[in-house]
Amino acid sequence: MSRPQTPTLDRVAGPADLRALGDAQLAALAGELRSEVIDAVSQTGGHLGSSLGVVELTVALHAVFNTPMDKLIWDVGHQCYPHKILTGRRDRIRTLRKKGGLSGFTKRSESAFDPFGAAHSSTSISAALGFAVGRDMGKPTGDAIAVIGDGSISAGMAYEALNNAGHDGRRLFVILNDNEMSIAPPVGAMSAYLSRLYANEPLAKMRSLAEGFEAALPAPMRDGAKRARQMVTGLTGQGTLFEELGFDYVGPIDGHDMGQLLPVLRAVRARATGPVLIHCCTVKGKGYAPAESAADKYHGVASFDVDTGAQKKSKPAAPSYTGVFGKTLADEAARDPDIVAITAAMPSGTGLNIMADRFPARVFDVGIAEQHGVTFAAGMAASGLKPFCAIYSTFLQRAYDQVVHDVALQGLPVRFAIDRAGLVGADGATHAGAFDLSYLCALPGFTVMAAADEAELMHMVATAVAHDTGPIAFRYPRGNGTGVEMPDRGTPLEIGKGRVLRRGTDVAFLSLGAHLAETLDAADLLAGDGLAATVADARFAKPLDKALLADLAATHRALVVVEEGAQGGFGSMVLHELAATGALDGQLAVRCVHLPDRFIDQASPAEMYADAGMTAQDIAAAARRALGLPENVVRLNRA
Amino acid sequence: MSRPQTPTLDRVAGPADLRALGDAQLAALAGELRSEVIDAVSQTGGHLGSSLGVVELTVALHAVFNTPMDKLIWDVGHQCYPHKILTGRRDRIRTLRKKGGLSGFTKRSESAFDPFGAAHSSTSISAALGFAVGRDMGKPTGDAIAVIGDGSISAGMAYEALNNAGHDGRRLFVILNDNEMSIAPPVGAMSAYLSRLYANEPLAKMRSLAEGFEAALPAPMRDGAKRARQMVTGLTGQGTLFEELGFDYVGPIDGHDMGQLLPVLRAVRARATGPVLIHCCTVKGKGYAPAESAADKYHGVASFDVDTGAQKKSKPAAPSYTGVFGKTLADEAARDPDIVAITAAMPSGTGLNIMADRFPARVFDVGIAEQHGVTFAAGMAASGLKPFCAIYSTFLQRAYDQVVHDVALQGLPVRFAIDRAGLVGADGATHAGAFDLSYLCALPGFTVMAAADEAELMHMVATAVAHDTGPIAFRYPRGNGTGVEMPDRGTPLEIGKGRVLRRGTDVAFLSLGAHLAETLDAADLLAGDGLAATVADARFAKPLDKALLADLAATHRALVVVEEGAQGGFGSMVLHELAATGALDGQLAVRCVHLPDRFIDQASPAEMYADAGMTAQDIAAAARRALGLPENVVRLNRA
Repeated sequence: MSRPQTPTLDRVAGPADLRALGDAQLAALAGELRSEVIDAVSQTGGHLGSSLGVVELTVALHAVFNTPMDKLIWDVGHQCYPHKILTGRRDRIRTLRKKGGLSGFTKRSESAFDPFGAAHSSTSISAALGFAVGRDMGKPTGDAIAVIGDGSISAGMAYEALNNAGHDGRRLFVILNDNEMSIAPPVGAMSAYLSRLYANEPLAKMRSLAEGFEAALPAPMRDGAKRARQMVTGLTGQGTLFEELGFDYVGPIDGHDMGQLLPVLRAVRARATGPVLIHCCTVKGKGYAPAESAADKYHGVASFDVDTGAQKKSKPAAPSYTGVFGKTLADEAARDPDIVAITAAMPSGTGLNIMADRFPARVFDVGIAEQHGVTFAAGMAASGLKPFCAIYSTFLQRAYDQVVHDVALQGLPVRFAIDRAGLVGADGATHAGAFDLSYLCALPGFTVMAAADEAELMHMVATAVAHDTGPIAFRYPRGNGTGVEMPDRGTPLEIGKGRVLRRGTDVAFLSLGAHLAETLDAADLLAGDGLAATVADARFAKPLDKALLADLAATHRALVVVEEGAQGGFGSMVLHELAATGALDGQLAVRCVHLPDRFIDQASPAEMYADAGMTAQDIAAAARRALGLPENVVRLNRA
Repeated sequence: MSRPQTPTLDRVAGPADLRALGDAQLAALAGELRSEVIDAVSQTGGHLGSSLGVVELTVALHAVFNTPMDKLIWDVGHQCYPHKILTGRRDRIRTLRKKGGLSGFTKRSESAFDPFGAAHSSTSISAALGFAVGRDMGKPTGDAIAVIGDGSISAGMAYEALNNAGHDGRRLFVILNDNEMSIAPPVGAMSAYLSRLYANEPLAKMRSLAEGFEAALPAPMRDGAKRARQMVTGLTGQGTLFEELGFDYVGPIDGHDMGQLLPVLRAVRARATGPVLIHCCTVKGKGYAPAESAADKYHGVASFDVDTGAQKKSKPAAPSYTGVFGKTLADEAARDPDIVAITAAMPSGTGLNIMADRFPARVFDVGIAEQHGVTFAAGMAASGLKPFCAIYSTFLQRAYDQVVHDVALQGLPVRFAIDRAGLVGADGATHAGAFDLSYLCALPGFTVMAAADEAELMHMVATAVAHDTGPIAFRYPRGNGTGVEMPDRGTPLEIGKGRVLRRGTDVAFLSLGAHLAETLDAADLLAGDGLAATVADARFAKPLDKALLADLAATHRALVVVEEGAQGGFGSMVLHELAATGALDGQLAVRCVHLPDRFIDQASPAEMYADAGMTAQDIAAAARRALGLPENVVRLNRA
């Protein structure tokens, strides 16, 4: 497949080159940049739609602002592919999201043009305000510009930042990149508010160019803007919601029209004395028909054929955990009318779309609002409903106090379905579900489970339905299950009881979650060396199966604990129990296999777990260490 | 001291009695209720100002709504004393915040009239929406009413909830209790916006009574409201910020005037079909001159003399940790111009007011906005400043994802000053700083310290100033220090190095944080029984002092680890290190003393730690268990 022709782009080694181009050349450059993005992502997969939506904006921002002295902060950072191409990373753009390659998000360690990394949403305005303070206190920093989408700006954190920045009054730029489409169609009143701004186009156009900037605009725009603004706003003094919060508001402008972007950005750069919000309308997937016509699908794509848009997703051997959860919950909801479900802007990512199709009034998409979502669920639980809060492990971090204060302290039976537990692959360290076991197991009264396979997940959904006396969580990994035989429906598990899969005498493995497969492989490796291992699946990190643990400790010389999470979670629960009961006082040797104390960069999940030292070989080696045997006898050529 | 005369209140056993009273009697009742609150809090201490501000509102809400079938949810819940008196808890009101007494906040386990407990701010609207869904799905629930202050509504979570509820469109009541005063004078643009509503009184008055409610009002109010509303709002269709978010807006009304409260609440109850925000203006401390004239001081008070308002705070023997932190940081800031500080609406609670007095431009109060505050600090760190983020342990939970995603993942040198670590006394379980060690120690690259006394705290502030290569946190308890001799200034500690205070041979104690005092007492207890203990202060939970740990493990039969936190923190770090290095393979016995796996109700901190099983006797008993000796030999009559 031949690369697109990009004569202008080929002459741009960095933003400095770009600033030497005329406006017409910049528009041409944007076209070439779009082709380059499409070609690269067709090979790597990634966040195509978001990146295509900001091609012109990216060119205009780098042309007008003095990056990297000026700090350009992309919210979420998944729209940064054109930015990476323009900032010295074009030669590596086809390594996006691959092992050893470029991150799919902005990342400080990757480039001076990424002053503040991201991946989770709604952080950019806060960070930009921090840089603006640094600039005003004499640090080598120019302007701070946050670029944030209409979905991300609906999160409470962005509102906190707008509120604080508006009050602070410091010079600061926020670009609202409004494509009327977050990952799912945006929900919430903020979305309706933005839509009303469109509906009232003449009003919007004249607000467009608030006083102080008008003078710098081309004459026809200036006069129209001034007159219209005066006409509509002069009477009440009332402004937009952003103006209420202390920002000058400029917009909406067409984010694909360099003829609007460049003069407006130049005007605000020249004139702003305080915080300015520039409302910029873009189309997700702009310029690539298959993406424009299916913006949701092209939010995150696999590699694809540029001509047809067909994605090269291979047919999975087993159902995905997400799909199993979604279908199982929908089936349970059909039997129990009290079941409701909550998602924070991730209906299809969590699999709740399956239940929403069948019971639309019982699935609540609260938008990017995890804090509200968890406490909303707690309120529903207090009213007697059975809420399932489906939030990825990494995003549940955003609602930790709500989990503690509103759910755990009150002992309310909110069910947490925690997808993307453990390492997740191409999205890398920012999306790893590493900490949920440690931050949940510390909470009194919480029941915490992890699914070893997709059939176990079905049982855990059923367990959570049945468990109405307190909070309960179950975690499961990204990706496909193991292909086990599936029951017709799940059966509630006995709370706090694990299961033994294999009996041996030399060493016991106690696994929690989906690394059971690797643990069984480790037992096979040991068997090849003449060592007989017991393998147990704890199912519950909390409450621990104390009887099982005591039995394993009493009947083996060594115990190896395995979990797909950071230190402080399941292994910690086991060690504390063993210490408290005196089981460690004697000769029992214990080793824990968990994520190491560093962040793991993106690669395939298997590669990431190898990087983490959590392969079957690593687990077998831990057992050999515990037994006082040399590690290297393990045959590393297997598996 | 004689109790106030309360003939009307004496006839009210609960809200049902209150609903039989006429409007004039309700006004009289409010007066008596105010006297009762003042008298009770003069004996118990507590949140006087907030409770006095909502006396009339409390009476009116219970008179108009059908509690407890209707769900009345007080945000934060610290203004609930009149509510508790009216809902069957008058007989225990003088036990507020004491061991075995009433909680200082709303609490589900205390009364059916507390449908959703609180203590942290900004959760009420989310919970109320949950109840409203429950009602609409057939649960035995009437209306849902959230009462939220102007400070609390500025938090992002409240905005998320307003946004979601406005979009949802379900019948729901939010009472904005606006006293123009959160704990400190409110900051942020939302505060300025509310002030503008006042400034523009005629506009506000007519907005007052939005369409649909007007018909139910007394005729003079109705006609004026209708005309005025039409006059000002008819032209543009623009409403208040709350209306932009999808709420009907009613107000402002005088929250101390039963003649306004009762008809407005009756009107909205009779007519509302969707979400309504009632903007109610109150005076914090209303009706008690010492409180009205010093609202901040009477936010949380000790017991006091009703006639003079003089609080009975005893002179402390040693400086408070908060004060030592505040003064030390201000002194460091005088030497290092890069030091800046961030608080989330707690300038005096955190001691940052001391630095703010000396360097006002370098202390940032972001309002109740912990998420924004932490990422704002990360942005400042990225620009080269040295930010100190001073947030109580329990409130830092509100910004956990920001700590993970914006600070830890990027390795940014944000300094976290974590006050109120461990159990905190009268504020009870909701304010306990129990989980910070577990949720921070799991994070790669984090340095985590805990101060054993107030001189150590000075050294840790200095250590944090000097540590510019990654995130660092130091925790310290509520209350007064131990009275140790204080250095002129702190000296940076060697990262990851503990200290040995006493050498023995039988058992080693490794303490982290302010329970060092109890640990030394435990060593004394053992000495009385002929056992010689080593006592070490780890100083760092992370990185661990591995050399010290290995030495203790190698030279003692037993090791007891002590921390003022939940399981999963420091003890977990120690156990994992011992397991990984094989130190547990032999005969070493380890016991961990930490907070138990349950929430501890309010009492004095000493009583709470006794409840938690963390006295010196308990620590000594743990050592005896580890040594295989009977526990009961420890002389429990000591200390």
